[in-house]
Amino acid sequence: MDRHEVGIILKYTDSLSKRPRPLSISTVNSSSTEEFMNAFDVESFNTAVDIAAGKLSELLENDEIQGVVLERPNTLLAAARALMVGTKDSFDAKRFAEILDLYIRTGIKVNSRGYMARQFSSVVPVSAVFDMVSAMAPQPASYYEAGQLANVADKLIAEEFGRLLGWELGRFDMVTTSGASLANMTAVLVARNRKLGDSWTDGVRATGRGRGRPAIAFGAESHYSVSRLAGILGLGVDQVVRMPLNDRRRIDIDGAVAALDEAKARGLDVFCIVGAAGTTSVGAIDPLEELAAEARKRDAWFHVDAAHNGALLVSDRLRPRLKGLELADSFCLDAHKTLFVPALCTLLFYRDPEAASAAFPEKHSYVFDPVEDEMSRFQSGIKNFECTKRPAILNLWLVWALFGRRFFEQKLDYLVDLTRQAHDHLAAQPDFEVLHQPESNILCFVHRPAGLPDSQLGTLQLALRDRIRAEGRYFVSKVELDGSTVLRIVMMNHQIGLFDIDALINEIRRHAREIRRDWVGESTRNDNKPHIWTVEKTC
Amino acid sequence: MDRHEVGIILKYTDSLSKRPRPLSISTVNSSSTEEFMNAFDVESFNTAVDIAAGKLSELLENDEIQGVVLERPNTLLAAARALMVGTKDSFDAKRFAEILDLYIRTGIKVNSRGYMARQFSSVVPVSAVFDMVSAMAPQPASYYEAGQLANVADKLIAEEFGRLLGWELGRFDMVTTSGASLANMTAVLVARNRKLGDSWTDGVRATGRGRGRPAIAFGAESHYSVSRLAGILGLGVDQVVRMPLNDRRRIDIDGAVAALDEAKARGLDVFCIVGAAGTTSVGAIDPLEELAAEARKRDAWFHVDAAHNGALLVSDRLRPRLKGLELADSFCLDAHKTLFVPALCTLLFYRDPEAASAAFPEKHSYVFDPVEDEMSRFQSGIKNFECTKRPAILNLWLVWALFGRRFFEQKLDYLVDLTRQAHDHLAAQPDFEVLHQPESNILCFVHRPAGLPDSQLGTLQLALRDRIRAEGRYFVSKVELDGSTVLRIVMMNHQIGLFDIDALINEIRRHAREIRRDWVGESTRNDNKPHIWTVEKTC
Repeated sequence: MDRHEVGIILKYTDSLSKRPRPLSISTVNSSSTEEFMNAFDVESFNTAVDIAAGKLSELLENDEIQGVVLERPNTLLAAARALMVGTKDSFDAKRFAEILDLYIRTGIKVNSRGYMARQFSSVVPVSAVFDMVSAMAPQPASYYEAGQLANVADKLIAEEFGRLLGWELGRFDMVTTSGASLANMTAVLVARNRKLGDSWTDGVRATGRGRGRPAIAFGAESHYSVSRLAGILGLGVDQVVRMPLNDRRRIDIDGAVAALDEAKARGLDVFCIVGAAGTTSVGAIDPLEELAAEARKRDAWFHVDAAHNGALLVSDRLRPRLKGLELADSFCLDAHKTLFVPALCTLLFYRDPEAASAAFPEKHSYVFDPVEDEMSRFQSGIKNFECTKRPAILNLWLVWALFGRRFFEQKLDYLVDLTRQAHDHLAAQPDFEVLHQPESNILCFVHRPAGLPDSQLGTLQLALRDRIRAEGRYFVSKVELDGSTVLRIVMMNHQIGLFDIDALINEIRRHAREIRRDWVGESTRNDNKPHIWTVEKTC
Repeated sequence: MDRHEVGIILKYTDSLSKRPRPLSISTVNSSSTEEFMNAFDVESFNTAVDIAAGKLSELLENDEIQGVVLERPNTLLAAARALMVGTKDSFDAKRFAEILDLYIRTGIKVNSRGYMARQFSSVVPVSAVFDMVSAMAPQPASYYEAGQLANVADKLIAEEFGRLLGWELGRFDMVTTSGASLANMTAVLVARNRKLGDSWTDGVRATGRGRGRPAIAFGAESHYSVSRLAGILGLGVDQVVRMPLNDRRRIDIDGAVAALDEAKARGLDVFCIVGAAGTTSVGAIDPLEELAAEARKRDAWFHVDAAHNGALLVSDRLRPRLKGLELADSFCLDAHKTLFVPALCTLLFYRDPEAASAAFPEKHSYVFDPVEDEMSRFQSGIKNFECTKRPAILNLWLVWALFGRRFFEQKLDYLVDLTRQAHDHLAAQPDFEVLHQPESNILCFVHRPAGLPDSQLGTLQLALRDRIRAEGRYFVSKVELDGSTVLRIVMMNHQIGLFDIDALINEIRRHAREIRRDWVGESTRNDNKPHIWTVEKTC
């Protein structure tokens, strides 16, 4: 036990006889102090900034086609371990530069035209610079006193989106969260707390609101942050209703009604319906108006996971694709995806301004004042899951303040146009199949060289993804659609043009030829590969 | 409906007659492209870096005593709105500088010796620089392919802590999360899924594992992220057992046993016991060994919220205070608190390496490969709540690699020593009462000028907090202990010395005199204040 610990709370009484002890600053060991304080000196900081800015400038100017350079984990582990010297007491600029080189080398090349794999994006550079500022001079955004500008920016950005949604100022609410997984959970928790009376205090009960076992419904291709929610929130993942999709991979409204009716008949009480505006696989936007009407009819909360496509609100031309979003009880969008600011910056909107406080109906004195005043009314505090929260909203507000809504609109318009053109271009190839009309900047397709049997289609796409990735020039992802593996590109970089799509097509064809050759060789050796497709005639 | 949307999934068949269309790059409107691409140019980036680095250098060099400058929300709203011009198509360096000025002016002054309010910290500058790098060149850390170095750094940092805990390499697991709220939830979810068989699939049921209604237990001063969990996870906040505290404000083990027995008798099945290593109010460390033994005896999971004090592990001198932490089934610590890196960087440890996968027992094809390989085995993926996750572990790894464990140790040793000396110094004052022996870098106290009636003690502390904060030099917080408001300081800045504590004492005395004068005046005017304390004789 520590010698300073004594078993009672010391209670010094007012005693006039006691005098303050003489003040001794040197009681704290100053030699060790000086040693570690080197890490905080301003020269080291400026040296580090110069090194980092230099490397990031190179990255911005580099027009090489790069996807990713994959290293084997154990090789990388050894390389990283070798950099952990940590014996010098002053800043080692050379080692810092080596660490940045290793970091940049092993990262995804989102600044290159080669990266088309996922919804990760090159950010607006000035918003990356702001991350350094908010790291060093933090404004933790849960409390007004700690994050004044952050809480004000919440209001200003909410106003902008309110206008675009046609929502009346002061009649809705918006909170920022660290990611859409958290936003989806928070919204469904509001739904649960609102619709199932005492579930917060009493727990989730089989009876719920007396209409059966509490359940939630979502589309068959919902993001996993949604499909997990029934498990997390105590409903049980058996109590979910998966609404079927139509041939556009959107929720099919007739199928949804049938599934909801069938669930009701099975004794499930669907208190929350979750739609998607931008499924992860293909970017499909569910029929929001119809789902909103269906939810209203069934006294269910309607939440929309618009993480990917919610940002289309900023574009006059694309906004109509989100028709019905304004009818949702809640929805979220990821500014760190399609508004091009650093992760994690998610906006969670509530149509009813009172709803936000229903997520976590508790208050705590050590963080929140007993009496609400004009300042605490402004803060997100109790509406958030997070206690410490980065002021990520300011990265978005900053770009918005500097460049305006038009900036986001133009970039999104470009990416969506590009994706449609990539669709048309791929569709015109004899040996490619596009699998959907893109609704935003995501496109799925397969390469089907002449003679490839159906049974090998999925295996080929997976092999293609692996080889393309391994080569390191382009980087595409794969998803499963109806049980088959297909290729997927996400257009996040405005430097990408149709020439890149064409180059990617050629690269895919080349890899497919090599894969075929390898499979033929393997099959000759050990005869365990099924049918090898016939020699292609054209590609 | 969009004209590009058609009602079927297009299925192009292999057709040799189809030829690729001529490629047209100019089909995408290039004039609007050029306009928005200005936001991405490298000169703007470098200008922004220079401006930001200049302002942050000033902040590092400024030795003014500052706490916070509070602005009224509506005033600040107007100031921020005025900066939202957003009409220029190129980067407006002047406006960017103005925005940074407004941001820094309205932020908490964690780099000044005046800021003692909360667990927010000035970060190691090089780790703030790294935030700019990881914003611009992201390594989303959930997947190995996207965040190679991030996933490797997880292992390296886990190894370091494993050594300090005496845990055998490869026999435990660590995942990083975006904050301790998420870590606490994830750990208790693992507890729930492990201890209550089918709660993930079937939901939380009153019967649980057949021993009564599922419940969790935690200390009376647990962080609100813990006390909320029963509400979030479907148990209901009525199903919590609050274990009483002893006079050190730690969980009292006899009281805990009694409370757990009583809960059992009431039909509650406590499947998870949560201890704290560093309560938010006073930094108290619960009796971890005894709690671990009690949990084992009751077949309950033992989680420790060591967000604040878990970092003491890095100090040879302070580590013994955490004795018993190595017996926990899980615990978390916030590197963004007491390891001085940017938020949010929380480490969540599991004693059993298999446990981490029990939090979210689902896999999803579009993000995770069907077959686990050496790369996917390395990634945190399914162990995390987050889908997109910042590689925050690298901010910690970077500082560790550059400066070594000793750096953290020396800074923590200094802050803990300083807090003990602040305790002794305050205790020696006739008109101050310290309320506990500090176990780390948090100290609670009250100012009790001679003659102040007990009934006004709490009101005075709140008024003191408000006035000190409003003046803007020092910034201390307040908490409620046993229903009374007390003052609280958290030593996060190594530049703070005992001279600052002395200056704070004098400032508090001056404010108290002014408050008394004002209360006397008010009381004379409208006679609604109770008893005003007698004139102080000494201070």
